[in-house]
Amino acid sequence: MAERAALEELVRLQGERVRGLKQQKASAEQIEEEVAKLLKLKAQLGPDEGKQKFVLKTPKGTRDYSPRQMAVREKVFDVIISCFKRHGAEVIDTPVFELKETLTGKYGEDSKLIYDLKDQGGELLSLRYDLTVPFARYLAMNKLTNIKRYHIAKVYRRDNPAMTRGRYREFYQCDFDIAGQFDPMIPDAECLKIMCEILSSLQIGDFLVKVNDRRILDGMFAICGVPDSKFRTICSSVDKLDKVSWEEVKNEMVGEKGLAPEVADRIGDYVQQHGGVSLVEQLLQDPELSQNKQALEGLGDLKLLFEYLTLLGIADKISFDLSLARGLDYYTGVIYEAVLLQSPAQAGEEPLGVGSVAAGGRYDGLVGMFDPKGRKVPCVGLSIGVERIFSIVEQRLEAELLYKKNPKLLNQLQYCEEAGIPLVAIIGEQELKDGVIKLRSVASREEVDIRREDLVEEIKRRTSEPLCTC
Amino acid sequence: MAERAALEELVRLQGERVRGLKQQKASAEQIEEEVAKLLKLKAQLGPDEGKQKFVLKTPKGTRDYSPRQMAVREKVFDVIISCFKRHGAEVIDTPVFELKETLTGKYGEDSKLIYDLKDQGGELLSLRYDLTVPFARYLAMNKLTNIKRYHIAKVYRRDNPAMTRGRYREFYQCDFDIAGQFDPMIPDAECLKIMCEILSSLQIGDFLVKVNDRRILDGMFAICGVPDSKFRTICSSVDKLDKVSWEEVKNEMVGEKGLAPEVADRIGDYVQQHGGVSLVEQLLQDPELSQNKQALEGLGDLKLLFEYLTLLGIADKISFDLSLARGLDYYTGVIYEAVLLQSPAQAGEEPLGVGSVAAGGRYDGLVGMFDPKGRKVPCVGLSIGVERIFSIVEQRLEAELLYKKNPKLLNQLQYCEEAGIPLVAIIGEQELKDGVIKLRSVASREEVDIRREDLVEEIKRRTSEPLCTC
Repeated sequence: MAERAALEELVRLQGERVRGLKQQKASAEQIEEEVAKLLKLKAQLGPDEGKQKFVLKTPKGTRDYSPRQMAVREKVFDVIISCFKRHGAEVIDTPVFELKETLTGKYGEDSKLIYDLKDQGGELLSLRYDLTVPFARYLAMNKLTNIKRYHIAKVYRRDNPAMTRGRYREFYQCDFDIAGQFDPMIPDAECLKIMCEILSSLQIGDFLVKVNDRRILDGMFAICGVPDSKFRTICSSVDKLDKVSWEEVKNEMVGEKGLAPEVADRIGDYVQQHGGVSLVEQLLQDPELSQNKQALEGLGDLKLLFEYLTLLGIADKISFDLSLARGLDYYTGVIYEAVLLQSPAQAGEEPLGVGSVAAGGRYDGLVGMFDPKGRKVPCVGLSIGVERIFSIVEQRLEAELLYKKNPKLLNQLQYCEEAGIPLVAIIGEQELKDGVIKLRSVASREEVDIRREDLVEEIKRRTSEPLCTC
Repeated sequence: MAERAALEELVRLQGERVRGLKQQKASAEQIEEEVAKLLKLKAQLGPDEGKQKFVLKTPKGTRDYSPRQMAVREKVFDVIISCFKRHGAEVIDTPVFELKETLTGKYGEDSKLIYDLKDQGGELLSLRYDLTVPFARYLAMNKLTNIKRYHIAKVYRRDNPAMTRGRYREFYQCDFDIAGQFDPMIPDAECLKIMCEILSSLQIGDFLVKVNDRRILDGMFAICGVPDSKFRTICSSVDKLDKVSWEEVKNEMVGEKGLAPEVADRIGDYVQQHGGVSLVEQLLQDPELSQNKQALEGLGDLKLLFEYLTLLGIADKISFDLSLARGLDYYTGVIYEAVLLQSPAQAGEEPLGVGSVAAGGRYDGLVGMFDPKGRKVPCVGLSIGVERIFSIVEQRLEAELLYKKNPKLLNQLQYCEEAGIPLVAIIGEQELKDGVIKLRSVASREEVDIRREDLVEEIKRRTSEPLCTC
């Protein structure tokens, strides 16, 4: 009993700590951590007799959308959908779960992140992990060999979410795919064009699209001396290069995956290269790589792709990056991933260049895996990951009121700096007399008087500029 | 080996049978049944060595939406959303799954239909069964006491689906709810008004809204002599009266649920009554019912409700029906359910009056179940079940092409009769010469010449009439 009293006191103190952190507006991760400790203590305490204890929350890695967040979501979807439609796509939808076997063998090492449903009798089911595999199943089931479609829906991954950076266990994907036999690289180029159009329209800051080809990776692994059986797992290691250093990736390859150190070093020489079409041409001259049939095909296609990208006016956004690998098993050709180049919020919580917001590639074998006769339908597509975009747009849309009776100007400006609010409109006695409004840039602290009738235009102009300058 | 050969032959024959049924356009249920037999035989046969057998389908009770079906879905949602917005609702969204305990104890006998996720470590989760419980959880979590919101999303029930009648295991609900303390029956009347507005705008034929009150049911059970512990289970039995006869319901009450036959008979005298406000007034004079506090409150509220419904011009659509019980545990006051009065398709596959397309009611205790201090937030809401509406609108929107080179007119007309297509536009040589189009009503076989410029208007006019007459 004395023990219980001590535990109850601990729970009370920890509860106070959490409330304090919330008042101080501590980081979500810090609060989450302390809440976790609180829940653990409460679990130790066990149920209070007679009173039903109840955890009032959404499941880990998920969130509700408030009406305000829904407004942002609809705004972002509008931009995306209108681009997809402009490029001639029809829309489809599929169930949130699939037969478990439909998802089996499609995701490589990521398969462990699939949510299974409980066996309650009947079919074994899993929540969809992406929209690509259901699309391939849909094509095979309906014997379609030719369609441009988009699909916007939630997908599910039992990942360890970093929700502050817009990563969730339940999240939206906005997919656009082209199925059918066409001239080389034309649909691929359209997918990249769509990615660039959407990311530009959303005005979430500067971005870069990394491009690579599975065949180049496979060819490179072959000439470096990676055993065939290790291609996929080494591919997964390479894919981590955007998050960790080459040294760590090498350690994983050698230590965990049993690759010879000199093989890893040869891979390292390649995967640390990136550039434009000139790198493609340089590698086409590479005495070893150019002897590998697969790599040669991939490099040839990339060269053609860059021609189309130049015609489409987006070549400057594209970087050929040999470290781009993409975890999923089903890619067979060109792969790509768009990253934001800078933290969009002034707060700067996001390290440079880790902001993947869109990705995709060619998967010519996936539909054949579903067709009873193995008939293949070549496909290429892209997926916009909108959760990070939602949080950027949410921050940017913010027009705040300080809920204090007589807030001092300095306090208000300080709050703007902390919250990353870029602009302040100041209306004092003098401004009222002059019929103007003082517009202050929070970052530069510059102030200008603007006529009231010009205010909306001026704010629009400033907020549509790259975010760091306004 | 001989056994295996015999089984293989059986599988082959059953496969032919299924194909034959499909060609004959047999009913979906019949086909499903034969497919199930086929799958069973195949399972007995076991895996064929070397070749991977694969069932290419969506999970039981689910379906894909083709681009064409998506067009219908968006059209229907547009009508619903614009009505919800007109009535001042904001929109929210919640995760597709909730903590299992969030759903526990909210659905009574229907709880067995909840989809659980597999325990893969971490929290125990279930797919949402409706949008009402997540809404109550959202209110409690955000300490909201006052909101009008709508929410359109898929929900999940492990029911035995009759997909031909638009019943699925994954299906959409379109919910509108009003939370907060207001003057009696005003929000309730608005919910009924919204239901009527939406069903009228969708032009899916005539409908009726049945209304009852949980307190009247409870009062009635009490005075009939039902033990308190059996209220909920007897309520479930009564709720079946729209599908099965009173005799069957009585058998269930007496045989399965152990009610005394004379108690069941007393219930029968009540629940077979329905009518307008005059029935409310009659029951207010009922010597026993009027002595029961709960029943009296319910009848008083219904009387007030009918006054508002008259003011709102929808009293003629509403029927006070003592057999309406609604299965869910959480209702505390007025409950209602809208049914279509006739089969909308000429084919007539749907028996009269079983077409429930919308439902709802008052649930004043649900939010309090989530609040740590049990603080109550009165709520009332409605849910539109759109799957049946989708199939009706899909049938109605049909403009068909017969994919035959030289189809005879008679064949075409016959096809229209079979498929329930109401109108045929005929353009022959004479019509071309006269600048008219012959419009033929398939049901009545009447034909009229219409000027080309009037055709669209005339088709619109005819298809917006009650469906049986065009």
